[in-house]
Amino acid sequence: MIYADNAATTKVSEAALAAMLPCLTQVYGNPSSLYAFGQSAKELLEDARARIARCLNADPKEITFTSGGSEADNQALRTAAALGAKKGKKHIISTAFEHHAILHTLDALKKEGFEITLLDVHENGLITAQQVAETIRPDTALVTVMFANNEIGTVQPIAEIGAVCREKGVLFHTDAVQAAGHLPIDVQAMHIDMLSLSGHKFHGPKGTGVLYARKGIRLESLIYGGAQERNKRAGTENLPAIAGMAAALEESTAHLGETTEKLIRQRDRLIKGLSEIPHSILNGDAVHRLPSNVNFCFEAIEGESLLLLLDDKGICASSGSACTSGSLDPSHVLLAIGRPHEVAHGSLRLSLGEDITDDEIEYLIQSVKEVVAYLRNMSPVWRSLNEGKQQFVLP
Amino acid sequence: MIYADNAATTKVSEAALAAMLPCLTQVYGNPSSLYAFGQSAKELLEDARARIARCLNADPKEITFTSGGSEADNQALRTAAALGAKKGKKHIISTAFEHHAILHTLDALKKEGFEITLLDVHENGLITAQQVAETIRPDTALVTVMFANNEIGTVQPIAEIGAVCREKGVLFHTDAVQAAGHLPIDVQAMHIDMLSLSGHKFHGPKGTGVLYARKGIRLESLIYGGAQERNKRAGTENLPAIAGMAAALEESTAHLGETTEKLIRQRDRLIKGLSEIPHSILNGDAVHRLPSNVNFCFEAIEGESLLLLLDDKGICASSGSACTSGSLDPSHVLLAIGRPHEVAHGSLRLSLGEDITDDEIEYLIQSVKEVVAYLRNMSPVWRSLNEGKQQFVLP
Repeated sequence: MIYADNAATTKVSEAALAAMLPCLTQVYGNPSSLYAFGQSAKELLEDARARIARCLNADPKEITFTSGGSEADNQALRTAAALGAKKGKKHIISTAFEHHAILHTLDALKKEGFEITLLDVHENGLITAQQVAETIRPDTALVTVMFANNEIGTVQPIAEIGAVCREKGVLFHTDAVQAAGHLPIDVQAMHIDMLSLSGHKFHGPKGTGVLYARKGIRLESLIYGGAQERNKRAGTENLPAIAGMAAALEESTAHLGETTEKLIRQRDRLIKGLSEIPHSILNGDAVHRLPSNVNFCFEAIEGESLLLLLDDKGICASSGSACTSGSLDPSHVLLAIGRPHEVAHGSLRLSLGEDITDDEIEYLIQSVKEVVAYLRNMSPVWRSLNEGKQQFVLP
Repeated sequence: MIYADNAATTKVSEAALAAMLPCLTQVYGNPSSLYAFGQSAKELLEDARARIARCLNADPKEITFTSGGSEADNQALRTAAALGAKKGKKHIISTAFEHHAILHTLDALKKEGFEITLLDVHENGLITAQQVAETIRPDTALVTVMFANNEIGTVQPIAEIGAVCREKGVLFHTDAVQAAGHLPIDVQAMHIDMLSLSGHKFHGPKGTGVLYARKGIRLESLIYGGAQERNKRAGTENLPAIAGMAAALEESTAHLGETTEKLIRQRDRLIKGLSEIPHSILNGDAVHRLPSNVNFCFEAIEGESLLLLLDDKGICASSGSACTSGSLDPSHVLLAIGRPHEVAHGSLRLSLGEDITDDEIEYLIQSVKEVVAYLRNMSPVWRSLNEGKQQFVLP
């Protein structure tokens, strides 16, 4: 099996598992307990917080543990909305290709009276800091732009956007769920006020994430109850998962240079190979993209059939985000970069693991080529395109 | 070490760990993915859902996975509030000794225009179905009463309260975080509309819980994003933890009869032993209480010193809930059952594990006796009580 869906979730690393196991069966005390056994758990919790903070160039006090990226995104937006509302600022800037954890929360805020501006995304899957600068108004409460897109992997100019927001005095949040552990992140240098990440996207466990919030930002609670996380996130701390996440983030961060170099080489080989398929197009900028991400549209192909046939060949891939795979709608990300509906339906995302080999890349290329050819052979759409009865959209 | 704080959290059982491990490192696919590898995860997820449903006599479709008991409590209350508000019903009935996940959410709802009635709790730590019946009004949207109290362990007449609510057509939610895996629960027979539970309270892992909601109740989302959990709880499903929770709940439920019998015998020996300490009182009804729970007040004792000295003797205990242990306020539960402030400060909760031995019970009794005597010897309050300068409150 070739697991090429690492953007959906990753295998827990040995280091992460090694950090988790003692917390499950040995240091299992409640970190809020007074006795030494509980305090040992508390120490591990604070150690994990400090290590994660270091990976982001943040202060440990700026790290709040959540149940994952979606919760962190929700809490960040609710926090900015509450802070903005207090000052009469009810305008939020985002982009059309954010994750649904952002878009659906923005929908909810819209119903509560906020005005949302979604920036147009260029066909290459990027926005510019200038677009942000031009859209900021005196009543803008928040700019939220994802660090790297979960479908097409494009990496936004976060430091530049951060600088614009800082200069204009507007809060800046970034959903870094796909970026953390995969790209260098420095919340200070990049002027990031709030940032979300998720443990299971970089070989940590599922069910845990982080909301970084710069000192002075008073978080709005999503979940009320006990006084955990400085009273901003109730619920017994999930120490095993948190310890696993810290170990995974440290490991990923430590090896970022070498894995990036290796992955870019494999990614670009894969892109080159798949580009040979006629009437195919790479989605998202070829350079400003995650080292692990490849995303193509193939004309006259239905994405689901493609995935099922690749599955038969032992390849785990997706057409876009796992979160919306049950939906029959085409990807909102591909629509946002201007792909027509019928083309957006024929998308394929391959997100590589760090251990991908040359042979596996070759096998991926050959398999996709075969499956696309096979499906097109059976496709009435493909025939009518070839017979000139319809126009090709893609080159 | 004697770990006597199982109400705060429990050790993950072997069965739970065995269910978790393959999900962390083998079946690690995203359950929302199309390929067979993801579908294997989906099958395990649905299998866990069905098994948990069986333990509660619910339908699998009625089970929504959350990040824990606090989130489930918050979501249940938000759901009932939203449903009530649509019908112009903005009155909620609860009790003064609920967990803070309930009380603080009720505080938030109060600010949003809901009227909250907190029922008085009898000195024995119980409320009656009649109190509920007498308090229900035409505009009552919800009754929420905890199944078993987390501090004093009293078990409420849930089936009777459920019957009253069903008859009057009012939604009934119960926070069963302390009850699940420890007491028989039958949501149908008990007429429970919504119920919250938490995995780590019955030897499952931290970071996972369940919100049961009867068919026909449309849950309100707390966390927006992907379409997981039938669109009612966004975020990649935490399969390892969910699988562990299912295994733990099944195991606890299967052995409920024998563990209950054993624990009640040990609990009552412990209560008998601690009752010999002068000017001490058992908090909560002696019969209608969790088989694992012992909670005493000792006059002229400061709870924190008691815990630290017990810790020196290798005993993990608490003065009340772990969630609020950082607070200097006396327990709201003990105040609710009428203990004076100065007495509530001298509380001790011992929550026993199923593997507690006769010798350990003996050691607990002797240790508490010694520590209480030692602290009183040093206490000016104790001296002035004995010299008749102050009045004893406790017998």
